[in-house]
Amino acid sequence: MPSAIINSRDVDFLLHEWLGVEALCARDRFSDHSRETFDAVIDLARRLAETEFLPHYRTADRIEPRLDDDGAHVLPEVAEAVKAFARAGFMGAAFPAELDGMQLPHVVYTAAMAHFMAANVATAAYPMLTTGNAGLLAAFGTPAQIDAFAKPEIAGRYLGTMCLSEPQAGSSLSDITTRAVPDGEDVLGPRYRLSGNKMWISGGDQDISENIVHLVLAKVEGADGKLVPGTKGVSLFIVPKFLLDADGGPAERNDVVVAGLNHKMGYRGTTNCLLNFGEGTRHRPMGKAGAVGYLVGSVGQGLPIMFHMMNEARISVGLGAAMLGYRGYLLSLAYARERLQGRHAAARGTGPMVPIIEHADVKRMLLAQKSYVEGALALILYAARLVDEQHTGESEAQRRAAAELLGLLTPIAKSWPSEWGLAANDIAIQIHGGYGYTRDFDVEQLYRDNRLNPIHEGTTGVQAMDLLGRKILKDRGVALGQLAARIAKTVGRAQCHPELAVEAKALAAAWTEIGAVAGRLGTMGDDPHLLDNATPFLSAFGHGVLAWLWLEQALVAQTATAADADAAAFYQGKIAACRFFFAFELPKTGPWLRIVDSRTDIAASLPAAAF
Amino acid sequence: MPSAIINSRDVDFLLHEWLGVEALCARDRFSDHSRETFDAVIDLARRLAETEFLPHYRTADRIEPRLDDDGAHVLPEVAEAVKAFARAGFMGAAFPAELDGMQLPHVVYTAAMAHFMAANVATAAYPMLTTGNAGLLAAFGTPAQIDAFAKPEIAGRYLGTMCLSEPQAGSSLSDITTRAVPDGEDVLGPRYRLSGNKMWISGGDQDISENIVHLVLAKVEGADGKLVPGTKGVSLFIVPKFLLDADGGPAERNDVVVAGLNHKMGYRGTTNCLLNFGEGTRHRPMGKAGAVGYLVGSVGQGLPIMFHMMNEARISVGLGAAMLGYRGYLLSLAYARERLQGRHAAARGTGPMVPIIEHADVKRMLLAQKSYVEGALALILYAARLVDEQHTGESEAQRRAAAELLGLLTPIAKSWPSEWGLAANDIAIQIHGGYGYTRDFDVEQLYRDNRLNPIHEGTTGVQAMDLLGRKILKDRGVALGQLAARIAKTVGRAQCHPELAVEAKALAAAWTEIGAVAGRLGTMGDDPHLLDNATPFLSAFGHGVLAWLWLEQALVAQTATAADADAAAFYQGKIAACRFFFAFELPKTGPWLRIVDSRTDIAASLPAAAF
Repeated sequence: MPSAIINSRDVDFLLHEWLGVEALCARDRFSDHSRETFDAVIDLARRLAETEFLPHYRTADRIEPRLDDDGAHVLPEVAEAVKAFARAGFMGAAFPAELDGMQLPHVVYTAAMAHFMAANVATAAYPMLTTGNAGLLAAFGTPAQIDAFAKPEIAGRYLGTMCLSEPQAGSSLSDITTRAVPDGEDVLGPRYRLSGNKMWISGGDQDISENIVHLVLAKVEGADGKLVPGTKGVSLFIVPKFLLDADGGPAERNDVVVAGLNHKMGYRGTTNCLLNFGEGTRHRPMGKAGAVGYLVGSVGQGLPIMFHMMNEARISVGLGAAMLGYRGYLLSLAYARERLQGRHAAARGTGPMVPIIEHADVKRMLLAQKSYVEGALALILYAARLVDEQHTGESEAQRRAAAELLGLLTPIAKSWPSEWGLAANDIAIQIHGGYGYTRDFDVEQLYRDNRLNPIHEGTTGVQAMDLLGRKILKDRGVALGQLAARIAKTVGRAQCHPELAVEAKALAAAWTEIGAVAGRLGTMGDDPHLLDNATPFLSAFGHGVLAWLWLEQALVAQTATAADADAAAFYQGKIAACRFFFAFELPKTGPWLRIVDSRTDIAASLPAAAF
Repeated sequence: MPSAIINSRDVDFLLHEWLGVEALCARDRFSDHSRETFDAVIDLARRLAETEFLPHYRTADRIEPRLDDDGAHVLPEVAEAVKAFARAGFMGAAFPAELDGMQLPHVVYTAAMAHFMAANVATAAYPMLTTGNAGLLAAFGTPAQIDAFAKPEIAGRYLGTMCLSEPQAGSSLSDITTRAVPDGEDVLGPRYRLSGNKMWISGGDQDISENIVHLVLAKVEGADGKLVPGTKGVSLFIVPKFLLDADGGPAERNDVVVAGLNHKMGYRGTTNCLLNFGEGTRHRPMGKAGAVGYLVGSVGQGLPIMFHMMNEARISVGLGAAMLGYRGYLLSLAYARERLQGRHAAARGTGPMVPIIEHADVKRMLLAQKSYVEGALALILYAARLVDEQHTGESEAQRRAAAELLGLLTPIAKSWPSEWGLAANDIAIQIHGGYGYTRDFDVEQLYRDNRLNPIHEGTTGVQAMDLLGRKILKDRGVALGQLAARIAKTVGRAQCHPELAVEAKALAAAWTEIGAVAGRLGTMGDDPHLLDNATPFLSAFGHGVLAWLWLEQALVAQTATAADADAAAFYQGKIAACRFFFAFELPKTGPWLRIVDSRTDIAASLPAAAF
């Protein structure tokens, strides 16, 4: 039986039968591991997710975080779950042993995280942000900063945030106005005083951890005492909620105040805060106003450094979106197997009622969900596998190639599960009928929770501009060429299987078209309208990637030997989901690409007054 | 300036410039009316909707109906709004004068209702159900039943419901088990005692009205004392909450009890009840258990009679879905005009921030919404215009043709706005960014409210089977031929305008393909898999209808003389929305139709175990 939160058979299939993660154990970094340790970690994740994360899923939606003079308070169950997660070592799962981590491959860690996300995405957001935060510090912080902040995060004593948006600057980070003024230097590095307001800060305050490590983007004044326009002056600072005492423990309160909590459609267990830095009204650290912050890296390097965490966060958002969709699929599948309604089409309205899974339209809705959510999980695990390749690939060329391909796929990993995981949740409700619209069924909440994902960490529109503008056109198609080569290999393998020849041909044709359209855009030079239709391009590209990953899965299933009837049914399902995706989904790329290729200005040219 | 709930300029355009409703005044039934009375009614609707319906939109979401021993209680503001609606005469707007109605054309009444739906769909549900209920009684009830129940409904003293679903029988009405046993006869007709449970009853109880008129589907026992299987034994009964005294006023409590309220994702201002009939525990009317019900029409005619109200309700659901989308569009348009973020693409990141409506991708999202919601409203008003034609068309042939076309379009009028109005609400959130995900902005609630519409009054899947199975194949394409003829006329007119020639050609091609696919399905005989892919067929058909209605609107705009710059901008917007729909939406029909035409059994043939 599949567990309530994930199909463990599918996780096995993706990790072992498809991605062959056991082979990673041959590499130095993972030589202490084996298939057994990988499986034990996944098992533990499933148990913890089911016992510590899942039970308060609905409670944390009903009883939202609250704010009082002491700050934000969350449900005790949320705090307990985060602590259990840390106690089990998951905060450090992907960190090296010298940082007290388990030194697991990123792909195994990601598969473990999938379980927590599926069980309770809002509670899982705290560790997700914290590991990203610690990862950034491990990469760019000084040894003292790592000891002071990253290690307590890995131990689960501190939690982390990322503070980018401001009320007047959402997606547009060049317009931030949080100001950082030099204030000396101490063992933790160059010290600044920050002042400004940050908006939409997930985990911006909570009563779970001893301390909170805010990573804050702010602008250092130029020589003229003014903020440098654009992104050049943007720098990154560690702003702890509590300054550290001589022993490195939390001491004096820093000048950071929660000015308000947002009340959201879903994802309610995660506090979402408006933070005021440097007001000096409630807290005056070391006797004066201004939030104390320590520079990470150098002045002006804030954005590139932040993107280290941001890229990871984007893939994590994709994972969360995939898993919200995934659990909705499993719930609607279980419902469809039990709910009696109507009769077989062939029975002409007579005979006993049948489970609704027997109806063709319900099967269509289930298969659509399956193709979206299992496809989305495959995408995220593939991206996570590229992270490992980027760090431990055998040659410099392999590592660079993996990094480039990961960069190209990151906007897809963020946006595709967000759009289509939500579409899956929509279908899960539909299968439940009226019941799915009530708050008695989790599919209702899964849908509300997932609606956040196309918005945060860069909207779908922002991902589209990143994909087409930076990752393809500015890159001059280098990474795209790598992807095309991998796809061509898959096509070649699939052509040898008559059962998959139709799909192989369709995939090759789709990518020929995607490549041709991208190539023609590449001839437009710096036309300001180059990215006008970036979003339909993203849609087509994403479907093209997913079709590839489905053909990859079908190839494994097609060539596998089924040990028993269950295994045979599982492989049959994988092949059917692949065929479904090619028949029902991939053809959508045609209309999307024709929009891009036509360079239509129907939208762009319409004056605001005509709407 | 457009009002907050609707663009009045658009309503004018649709009613007068496109549908020419003033011409209806030449008909006997509407001879007391004029353009002035029509416009006055619309004006009054807008004012009432803004002052009585809109202000408690969010309150009624936050403070849900509650249940105690006296039954269900709603916000006082909901009750006040419904009473104000009735006082203004809107309950009877489309009813004839002899039933104390205003005898307005259905299309004008529908345009008025659009305002109430846009302002507060949950509050508008009470009048919507009541007018449908009274309409059914006016058509099928005895004079005594009309006097006793329909007239107090038209006066707003009583409200009505429709009681179809049961816990074990959602969409499958042949499986209902509510039982009706003969219990004599009185002035209100053959009297029965009903027992059973009804689920998902909107307005099933409330403290707004003096009495509630439940229209209940139940089965009369056959000669053998058993319920007749299938739909044949299904009959319709009036079951009032309070029996009437000798003067026709509410008296003894009937044996109907609210067993529970559903707690929904949205649409919360409308009570949604589990009703128990005939338990005999709390109420024993006339000394014994059993809910007293009066037969409407004859035994076994329940379903065809109920469909009188159901068809109207389906179009009303479409209207509500359209208007939820419509208001979201207007809110996101206003937001996009004010919110500063980023710079013009051509400005290369320098210069002042611009309103986000200046960004091509935001324009794309606005134009998508515009094409969905103004298109959906046009569809509903077209359907309402057919209702008038059905009743007052000049010849029997015209009336029959209108009825047939209305039957064909009803599943589209129900499902298309439900699917695409919701898609519009999704985009409205996206334009608001993080703000749209908070409960501080109405777009959040509009999205939750609209998620009901693809479910109730027949899911999208049920509409698809109705369209393809009953309205096309069983009808042998008669109604489809009528539609095709009207579309051909539009194409012919558009071909004379070079600016619309591309769209004319595309529309003709799309309908050639739709007709061909339907024709090939028609050769399949009674293959049980005939309807397996009915839903993609519905999707394609719906987009084909909407493309037609957009070309109709563009034709009006193209040939209109603009009196000023505002009018010119309005017409420009209509033409752009048409072009957008043809470029971005209509091409989706290709992939949908190819699925249908391929008769794929990828979904239908997959065994339940393989999911």
